[in-house]
Amino acid sequence: MAPSRMPGSLASPHVRAKRTRRRTEILHAALRAFRERGYHATTLDDIAERLGVGKTALYHYFPDKEAILFACHQESLAELDRILRGTRRYASATERLAYVIREHVRVMTDTLEGSPLAFEVPALAPERQDTIIAARDRYERALRRMITDGIAAGEFRKVEPKIAVFAILGAINWIARWYRPEGTIHAAELGEQFAEHLVGGLTCG
Amino acid sequence: MAPSRMPGSLASPHVRAKRTRRRTEILHAALRAFRERGYHATTLDDIAERLGVGKTALYHYFPDKEAILFACHQESLAELDRILRGTRRYASATERLAYVIREHVRVMTDTLEGSPLAFEVPALAPERQDTIIAARDRYERALRRMITDGIAAGEFRKVEPKIAVFAILGAINWIARWYRPEGTIHAAELGEQFAEHLVGGLTCG
Repeated sequence: MAPSRMPGSLASPHVRAKRTRRRTEILHAALRAFRERGYHATTLDDIAERLGVGKTALYHYFPDKEAILFACHQESLAELDRILRGTRRYASATERLAYVIREHVRVMTDTLEGSPLAFEVPALAPERQDTIIAARDRYERALRRMITDGIAAGEFRKVEPKIAVFAILGAINWIARWYRPEGTIHAAELGEQFAEHLVGGLTCG
Repeated sequence: MAPSRMPGSLASPHVRAKRTRRRTEILHAALRAFRERGYHATTLDDIAERLGVGKTALYHYFPDKEAILFACHQESLAELDRILRGTRRYASATERLAYVIREHVRVMTDTLEGSPLAFEVPALAPERQDTIIAARDRYERALRRMITDGIAAGEFRKVEPKIAVFAILGAINWIARWYRPEGTIHAAELGEQFAEHLVGGLTCG
């Protein structure tokens, strides 16, 4: 068996790093294909072609397209988890929420390259849907807590946290519907304005 | 030929009114089916069953499911047009934008009953997609103008109007992803909080 096909835990660090890099490249090629053609119309051949390899090369990493979609979801939810941990450095709910919005927008524009991942949950197998929905629920609860904390601290108006979180996540998820990396809107400007708009609307009025 | 099958213009006012009512009932049954089963999984039989009639009864009104989807889009865009005309009674951009958000949320929760219409444009025939996209673009331009006017009048911060409109419409369109008419969130409360949140974020910060 060639080293590159050995299970990750038995392979050398060099081989593991190479595999991780290749895996990331596959996910990015897939995300671009999903954005441009839609998930359902995308084939493994489309993804392989973008990487200049044959379809069989992908089978060393993923058994099928749905496994690739699931991996994309896992990567993006892991990023959202990292963002939540990153909020600890901020003292106020206002700063924490602005940070989360800026960073979540960055995940949409950079990590996901504008791919409509949040729209493709129904394409996953039921038990994988459950995993993703549970992780997404945890994220939503963390955001609601942030808003509840902000209200308690007198930073935010007395809004219904659930509705406020739906407004924020709707604005962010909708990015996949219109954002194009090659377009005129700058990713950083987008994150900044979304944070000011969506946090500002809670702090005064 | 039975009177109820005569072209609208030749039928009596009474028959025309009855046809219009029936047509609206079909659209509402279709919207509920689209929300509960998804557009692609919904059949004409599903829609007919909700009305307690056979599928052939629908053919007097619509040739196929796609024609029903198109009619739903047209109705909802006509409502958005009426909303825009309704803004004339307000003097400030702040009031006009708050009115549009409240009313657009009402279209999502009441007219569309939480049905994800904005997500189903790709299911339409190309020339019908063009019609809907052109109408949607006109609506987006009107909203951008409202924001530009608000900035000029010193009511809003100097934001990029395009990004602000995408944030607002994202929050509103996302309602179809989570709203359930039988849920705990009240439609009127939703519109009110969205208006305060999304307009408030432009007026200060």
